[in-house]
Amino acid sequence: MLATKVVQQLSSRGETLAFCESLSAGLASATIAQVPGASAVLRGGLITYATDLKVALAHVPQELVDEYGVVSPETAVAMAKGTRWVCDATWAVSLTGVAGPDSQEGHPVGEVFIACAGPDGVGVIRAQHPNGQELLHGDRNEIRTQAVDRALELLLNCL
Amino acid sequence: MLATKVVQQLSSRGETLAFCESLSAGLASATIAQVPGASAVLRGGLITYATDLKVALAHVPQELVDEYGVVSPETAVAMAKGTRWVCDATWAVSLTGVAGPDSQEGHPVGEVFIACAGPDGVGVIRAQHPNGQELLHGDRNEIRTQAVDRALELLLNCL
Repeated sequence: MLATKVVQQLSSRGETLAFCESLSAGLASATIAQVPGASAVLRGGLITYATDLKVALAHVPQELVDEYGVVSPETAVAMAKGTRWVCDATWAVSLTGVAGPDSQEGHPVGEVFIACAGPDGVGVIRAQHPNGQELLHGDRNEIRTQAVDRALELLLNCL
Repeated sequence: MLATKVVQQLSSRGETLAFCESLSAGLASATIAQVPGASAVLRGGLITYATDLKVALAHVPQELVDEYGVVSPETAVAMAKGTRWVCDATWAVSLTGVAGPDSQEGHPVGEVFIACAGPDGVGVIRAQHPNGQELLHGDRNEIRTQAVDRALELLLNCL
């Protein structure tokens, strides 16, 4: 299970984790918290479902949101960097995208960007479906669950 | 389904919602986000899993945490009040307690406090098991799921 691997690896490294969640709305953090011992590594996080909370809570610059939109690699990177600082965590992972059922700001359902900020910088991906497709797909909750899996995989790759 | 009722009622009232989650670690917010149309009411929230994030993010006074501990009605009330303000929501619901498997600061597994802050003040409950027992019970995830259900019920009672 991805969450168990994350908790084990961070525990053994003495490192901590925070999330900044938009479309997943807490699901990534809650998935980590399912693992006994999570409190040793999980600091907490920000659920920035409304756009203005990305600015107010995660310190994403308003100008950046205006220029690139909330569903963008730029915003994902800023969410992760801001949250790593605000939550004082070794690692911060952000998720922003379109869970559906409707498209958003011209972005199709299933378009999701995930960033991981750590001690050496920030990486960002556009989440891909396991079959290699460019978009996640399924219903609203399948997309959110897939996004969380991709986020935990990205974090494990960064460790 | 409780989450659907919450979204329907808040939507019809034109009101918004935020969460401050400790033991549930995002699960309450993610449960609301499962409902299509949730974005009209869900602002976001704070996942204050680590104690110091209750202070840093939700503006719970450190002296209050020192005096009453994190698993207390006083801390639950302060979490809800702070989050309502920080997230600029009509309603804020907080959850703090012990999911287990170990007890915490002398509090038994299953002891959970939930507060709901709204326009007219704050209410707080000690979550009870549906069978009337004073503590929630089950494994770690059953306790967190029960806590989320009690939180949504409390909110619906406050509306």
